[in-house]
Amino acid sequence: MRKIHVIGIGAGDPDQLTLQAVKALRRTDVFFVLDKGEVKSDLTRLRHDLLEAHRPEGAYRLVEARDPERDRTAGGAAYSPAVGDWRSARAALYERLIAEELGEDESGAFLVWGDPALYDSTLGILEEVLDRGAVTFSYDVVPGISSVSALVAKHRTGLNRVARPVQITTGRRLTESFPDGVDDVVVMLDAHQAFRQYADQDIDIYWGAYIGTPDEILVSGPLSETAERIGRLRAEARERKGWIMDTYLLRRHPRGGGEAAE
Amino acid sequence: MRKIHVIGIGAGDPDQLTLQAVKALRRTDVFFVLDKGEVKSDLTRLRHDLLEAHRPEGAYRLVEARDPERDRTAGGAAYSPAVGDWRSARAALYERLIAEELGEDESGAFLVWGDPALYDSTLGILEEVLDRGAVTFSYDVVPGISSVSALVAKHRTGLNRVARPVQITTGRRLTESFPDGVDDVVVMLDAHQAFRQYADQDIDIYWGAYIGTPDEILVSGPLSETAERIGRLRAEARERKGWIMDTYLLRRHPRGGGEAAE
Repeated sequence: MRKIHVIGIGAGDPDQLTLQAVKALRRTDVFFVLDKGEVKSDLTRLRHDLLEAHRPEGAYRLVEARDPERDRTAGGAAYSPAVGDWRSARAALYERLIAEELGEDESGAFLVWGDPALYDSTLGILEEVLDRGAVTFSYDVVPGISSVSALVAKHRTGLNRVARPVQITTGRRLTESFPDGVDDVVVMLDAHQAFRQYADQDIDIYWGAYIGTPDEILVSGPLSETAERIGRLRAEARERKGWIMDTYLLRRHPRGGGEAAE
Repeated sequence: MRKIHVIGIGAGDPDQLTLQAVKALRRTDVFFVLDKGEVKSDLTRLRHDLLEAHRPEGAYRLVEARDPERDRTAGGAAYSPAVGDWRSARAALYERLIAEELGEDESGAFLVWGDPALYDSTLGILEEVLDRGAVTFSYDVVPGISSVSALVAKHRTGLNRVARPVQITTGRRLTESFPDGVDDVVVMLDAHQAFRQYADQDIDIYWGAYIGTPDEILVSGPLSETAERIGRLRAEARERKGWIMDTYLLRRHPRGGGEAAE
């Protein structure tokens, strides 16, 4: 039976690999590296560097493919169907890669940035491939350090305050409203700097881009004082490198000392 | 200047240490291990095992202390003051440990289960020690695999569904209500199995205890079919081992196909 490891490789710092991930890398015959195009070639190179660091003997095969393009022009209500089409196209590709490139008794691996559990589609796609029924395999998941954990570690703060909740959400949703019932919100996948619309509120931001890499940028402080600077730094970095991966924590201060009652 | 590493050591599986954590362990002169009493002696032993695995030469000092007891009998509105007193008592202890046991040019480390960013007080206490002003040091944070990441990796599922948020909260808060605006909720610190009160709803649970250790127990499925069994397994395990660490993800199914509009 074919075996597949879905391996979280951390948020960018090669030392964020876990010992479990290193062991899984060493048990792998075939690595599937899906390139999202030129803008993310830095990320593909980082994966190659990880393999070279932990598999110096080179006794593995590398299968590279171009990830199907996602139609990001479709907005609003069309979001879900576009995502659906894209996932099906990826499922067809993954099915073909596994069937053609992985022998019946071999182990394959997908290397996932951060933690495969957060805003990553690999697990969903593998389930879809199994549902299609054309190829069979077992798989396991190696958790990784998420960009969320890496972000707050760099800022030396926690995700939650004592006995309080934290929500992880998307820039798209933050644009609609600040989530109900929480004052600590981590935002991922925000291409439009949704935090700017809350700059008049008593909220601190802990922002980071390219966390754990030599290009890392960190900014924290009251949104009212930092939102503009973060917007500028983000635009400059994106222009310079051709792509950006950033995330942030918003920490809202309770009105009128409500926290004491928690 | 004294230097302190706050090192996330993962959720129980020694292989969840990151390479960064191993490097930090190797740079440390003094390890502070705070014991919460006999019921958690298994956890203290696991930390000793980690040190033996990665510092075989033994060129370090181990400082063990008893963590101040937290008054868990105070309920309701008294929760916060009890936490406050407990944190101050811990700050006084940490201050004394650092001042008396760590030389001016040495590195110390606190080993934190999971990720220091999630429901852990070490960072808050170190800030409080610095605020008191009696001892100075710099510190950094090494992120770890949280029990949350370890849980969903074992269940081979994600924390969030496509483009949707996830909230991490406490058992206490889940007892009050199911959080607003989210259908995926991770619950930590739940001594009273708050999930049971939602067993009549269309919710799946992904539950785990002692995740990543030889005692690991995993259960998943509709709450209506699993809540009772989890309660029984949890009680038996707690009786057998004297302590339990468990966490779970609740995944609520949208009413009437609302998800297609996301």
